[in-house]
Amino acid sequence: MNDALAAWSRGRLIEVEAALAEVCADAEPGLREALRYPIQTGGKRIRPLLCLAAAESVAADGAAALQPALALELVHTYSLVHDDLPAMDDDNERRGRPTVHVVFGEATAILVGDALLTAAFEHVADSPTLVRELARAAGGAGMVGGQYLDIRGNVDGIDALKHLHRLKTGALLRASVRMGGIVGGASAAELQALTLYGEAVGLAFQIADDVLDADEVADEAGPPSYVRLLGVQGARTEARRLVEEAAAAVGQLPRPQVLVALAEFVAARAF
Amino acid sequence: MNDALAAWSRGRLIEVEAALAEVCADAEPGLREALRYPIQTGGKRIRPLLCLAAAESVAADGAAALQPALALELVHTYSLVHDDLPAMDDDNERRGRPTVHVVFGEATAILVGDALLTAAFEHVADSPTLVRELARAAGGAGMVGGQYLDIRGNVDGIDALKHLHRLKTGALLRASVRMGGIVGGASAAELQALTLYGEAVGLAFQIADDVLDADEVADEAGPPSYVRLLGVQGARTEARRLVEEAAAAVGQLPRPQVLVALAEFVAARAF
Repeated sequence: MNDALAAWSRGRLIEVEAALAEVCADAEPGLREALRYPIQTGGKRIRPLLCLAAAESVAADGAAALQPALALELVHTYSLVHDDLPAMDDDNERRGRPTVHVVFGEATAILVGDALLTAAFEHVADSPTLVRELARAAGGAGMVGGQYLDIRGNVDGIDALKHLHRLKTGALLRASVRMGGIVGGASAAELQALTLYGEAVGLAFQIADDVLDADEVADEAGPPSYVRLLGVQGARTEARRLVEEAAAAVGQLPRPQVLVALAEFVAARAF
Repeated sequence: MNDALAAWSRGRLIEVEAALAEVCADAEPGLREALRYPIQTGGKRIRPLLCLAAAESVAADGAAALQPALALELVHTYSLVHDDLPAMDDDNERRGRPTVHVVFGEATAILVGDALLTAAFEHVADSPTLVRELARAAGGAGMVGGQYLDIRGNVDGIDALKHLHRLKTGALLRASVRMGGIVGGASAAELQALTLYGEAVGLAFQIADDVLDADEVADEAGPPSYVRLLGVQGARTEARRLVEEAAAAVGQLPRPQVLVALAEFVAARAF
């Protein structure tokens, strides 16, 4: 993360974390503590940062993007809680801490995910456009659809792999940027530029993940990945190309600098 | 169900079922078929009927209530899919058919529930008031909060039992009536009347369930219930009182007849 981006992120994350600490305050006691646990497990908060940066890129005050930014992080968090369940990826640890179902039990983990997803929509309730954008990105034709393809397996070839990732991780990253643009009052042309940026960053994000897991995916029996299909060097080249594509897409916006730096940051894990 | 209510329901259910058959049309193939399965398992569609009846009770055209009615049924359906999971109630059969996780596997059943819940919000997206109403009724301070209390156990006494049911089943039934009133343009006084009606019907619904399960709950080791706390006769008397309370609440609305008949129908199972 370059110094300018680090300084910008630090300020925005203080607001995001403070607001995240207050979500679901009215949930039933006991459940409320369980809800807080995955939220507090942290993470890079990439989706909120993309949302805030997109709003600022069209010269809007990022404050308007705080509520959609929270909604995006709640949807992302719920998806991790459900993905970690024994019936799904069966992960016992995330970011160095035991997963929700390990600490609170499987039934509570299912309910924690359900409550976080439900709460997300309260944070975008004021805007019909944002409710639709979030529902489509998160639902059966978006993130959940991608997760379905992932658990079903049989992903054959680069087009099928790209389709899976466009849904599983790409849809919500794309929506993060678009939702920031929408609350920032982006013009149709600006929103189109942000959409192209979001799609390129979404794919770069996934390729970077695959490069990081390169040792693991060298196993022929493992899941399909860009590294297996393109090789490590080919995957890196593709990630680099996507970052340039993302930067070019937003080049004409009033204030594209933070978005450009975020695209670099997302893909940098691959280099 | 009396003849007038039966005739009214028949007409409304044709529209509701036709619209339900079209939901999630853009979901990923495979997942889409799995989503359709619990929707087509049917049920009485009490929540959609309450929503449509509430809109009509304030002299509005029920057509305006169709979208929120669908949203309510999607939330109800998702909650059944997740409640039936092995980690929750572990039910293998519902309405005479194998449950979603039995047919499609546990991972897909989790995703089906997630996708149905997400889709519900698209159907109320146009109204910030409805998005908030649905999110609060369905979330950690509503239905999911009640389900949490239920799986945690330790429900001690009638006040705790009422609190559990107010959240687990009452919140969504109450919201069904309120959402119909809201889209029907109910005045503040009318919405207050509909709210009282919805709360009474929600409790009557649960008591009727307990009376139906009376043989089961006669077992001292079973879960807490109104029958155990009040006796079968006491529970019936309470259900009767609640139906009268519900009818009285809406007595001054322009067209309360269908709501009154629905309250009778909901509680009739107890008699």
